[in-house]
Amino acid sequence: MRAEIITIGDELLIGQVVDTNSAWMAERLNEIGVELYQITSVHDRREHIVAALDEAFSRADIVLTTGGLGPTNDDITKHVLCEYFDTHLIEDQRVRAHIMDLYHERPDVLNRLTATQWLVPENAEILENRVGSAPLMVFHHGSQLLASMPGVPYEMKIAMEEQILPYISRQLSAISNQIIHRTLQVTGIPESSLAILLEGYESSMPADLHLAYLPKDGIIRLRLSSYGELSEEEMNRWFAELKTLVAKYLISDTDEPLEVILGKLLVARGKTISTAESCTGGKLASLLNKHAGSSAFYYGSIISYDNSVKEHLLGVPNELIKTRGVVSEEVAHIMAESVRRQLNTDYSIATSGIAGPTGGSIEKPVGTVWIAWATPQGTTAECFHLGKLREQITDRACTKALVGMIERVRGFED
Amino acid sequence: MRAEIITIGDELLIGQVVDTNSAWMAERLNEIGVELYQITSVHDRREHIVAALDEAFSRADIVLTTGGLGPTNDDITKHVLCEYFDTHLIEDQRVRAHIMDLYHERPDVLNRLTATQWLVPENAEILENRVGSAPLMVFHHGSQLLASMPGVPYEMKIAMEEQILPYISRQLSAISNQIIHRTLQVTGIPESSLAILLEGYESSMPADLHLAYLPKDGIIRLRLSSYGELSEEEMNRWFAELKTLVAKYLISDTDEPLEVILGKLLVARGKTISTAESCTGGKLASLLNKHAGSSAFYYGSIISYDNSVKEHLLGVPNELIKTRGVVSEEVAHIMAESVRRQLNTDYSIATSGIAGPTGGSIEKPVGTVWIAWATPQGTTAECFHLGKLREQITDRACTKALVGMIERVRGFED
Repeated sequence: MRAEIITIGDELLIGQVVDTNSAWMAERLNEIGVELYQITSVHDRREHIVAALDEAFSRADIVLTTGGLGPTNDDITKHVLCEYFDTHLIEDQRVRAHIMDLYHERPDVLNRLTATQWLVPENAEILENRVGSAPLMVFHHGSQLLASMPGVPYEMKIAMEEQILPYISRQLSAISNQIIHRTLQVTGIPESSLAILLEGYESSMPADLHLAYLPKDGIIRLRLSSYGELSEEEMNRWFAELKTLVAKYLISDTDEPLEVILGKLLVARGKTISTAESCTGGKLASLLNKHAGSSAFYYGSIISYDNSVKEHLLGVPNELIKTRGVVSEEVAHIMAESVRRQLNTDYSIATSGIAGPTGGSIEKPVGTVWIAWATPQGTTAECFHLGKLREQITDRACTKALVGMIERVRGFED
Repeated sequence: MRAEIITIGDELLIGQVVDTNSAWMAERLNEIGVELYQITSVHDRREHIVAALDEAFSRADIVLTTGGLGPTNDDITKHVLCEYFDTHLIEDQRVRAHIMDLYHERPDVLNRLTATQWLVPENAEILENRVGSAPLMVFHHGSQLLASMPGVPYEMKIAMEEQILPYISRQLSAISNQIIHRTLQVTGIPESSLAILLEGYESSMPADLHLAYLPKDGIIRLRLSSYGELSEEEMNRWFAELKTLVAKYLISDTDEPLEVILGKLLVARGKTISTAESCTGGKLASLLNKHAGSSAFYYGSIISYDNSVKEHLLGVPNELIKTRGVVSEEVAHIMAESVRRQLNTDYSIATSGIAGPTGGSIEKPVGTVWIAWATPQGTTAECFHLGKLREQITDRACTKALVGMIERVRGFED
């Protein structure tokens, strides 16, 4: 079973919006055994959408489209689909009732443009869009299938989870091809050296097993993929061997984000954490509380972007800032210990660095970051040089901070 | 001049990586007058890459590819391009010297896999990749052009800015078609009502002028686009008329992110800001210091995720939390005033809400968020209901917080 995604919207092709939908949809499709063959992004233009539909149907069993379903004139997907599937719009009383209900507290929304939302293609199956006004449409094209969803990520996600994925699963009478991905994460080895280390392993792999290297911010994710014949047991055996080969560099044998790995470690041990951030400015904090359940281990942070905040809230002596500089081992130490003590947590992380573009010097160029980790066993700090671009530096600093904390929390338990 | 982007990598099609490159590239191409016609994401598979190249060359003058240029076996783009353009790999001494220089402090990287990076297609022009080992390759295909870049976002961005965009600009002897986009942002009106308000305007627009509605988190971006005949003066006139029509709802007549708009307002007035965050947990802080120059107005934050931090660092009385609840007007007030006073800033914002999935009640369901704004003129707070999904709630809370602050900073000046 093979699928393609067509994302529709000028905003994608002029760079006004990043397409985050496709990756999320791809992951969900893989989980139910559907291979995503291609993602295509096209303008809100009739002839362009039609060409993309023709191409997708020449390759895929299932075509999923997102976008172009709003009530305004620039949104044309519903009309193009009507033409493509040779049908016309009719009023749908169920959709009408749903929209009436959705906006019953906001009568200003119930105008004549919103009323066009309950016009649906006659030969489409209409599924409920619980959280929005655009109906979800499923068209049958011989043995092929097209499902059209809104482009708003929240609406698309609920539509996929509650309607489209169950619908597709019902079509899959028996999953013949089981797609299996297994990912582990390593650090402290260059990608090319890792590949040399794994040469023997790779050359012994069966043809339908595939190994991919995904480096990012100093972490390499190693992904084993099978799109077919391999059983779960065989896959587990190959994965276990891979794990043994890279054991020295292993951070995790899952694809979970670092903050989730750390969170689970802390929860399992009943421990808590706080952060004191300068250059990362809250990025580390928002990673730590991004996922549900973070209140079990994450207490809070003091973001000391300005030096006055380092002095008054974190107790960094002005004298120290003058003599050692704000980006220094001593300052990072004090920040970490102060936030750990004040927020009364078991662990804490502090970052102080130069994210640029200005503020660098010959001794401390842009990209210099000190990170300190305070633990019940003491405080240690390390200096990193993390590149030249602001976003790159703060992203990498968060990665280093999390890896360092994971190693320390694990280390004290071993 | 028309371009297409082909992003290459299994990770995109199994949802392991979100393609942020394409939006960034699209924006840059538009700026120099190149229209992006389609974005296609394909697997690291020979026959699939070849099919995508054929299709792209049937439509576009310029084809840009990203990804598949690493030294490991799963990366095949360079080999496929060699075959596609009927050439073979030769050693490039300039690239070799560059890689030697790049890794002179890390001899472990200079292994035989890295050495494959200085093998380049004989008939390609090789441009310098200043920050990585994969050479940038430009192929000529009759009058058409293909440029191949790494998929790592930092490397791609530097390659585009320093090499590929100047290269394309030189090819554009004269920009015949000027692409102009103008965007403004409004709030406080439903999308459909806005469209009805603008019906007369839209029906009077010339055929090559296009109006798009981009709603997100309670903000609607309205974008006027011209891909051709309209002069800058005509465009300015249309945009000015649009601005007048939506004046009542206008937040900004630019496409700048809200945090940039607020930052500029504060800098122009010589004012500073801090935040006290509970449910947004650092997201607001990291928005405020995301962009270069933020140290001029942003001082820092106290992230009080746990109630103990609200009590001890923000002075919220335990009694008040017990009687009014932590998600309440009173608590948000105290949080905002406390952080403003402690960090000694002119303004501050506080958030306290229920991001879910647990923690909701009948009176205060998941999605309930109190936001308080402290200013030299006093403190005000507002309660919002921002949906059901954790990420949606915290994103929308940040939007509401920034809009409220922009209105207050502006209001006191008018």
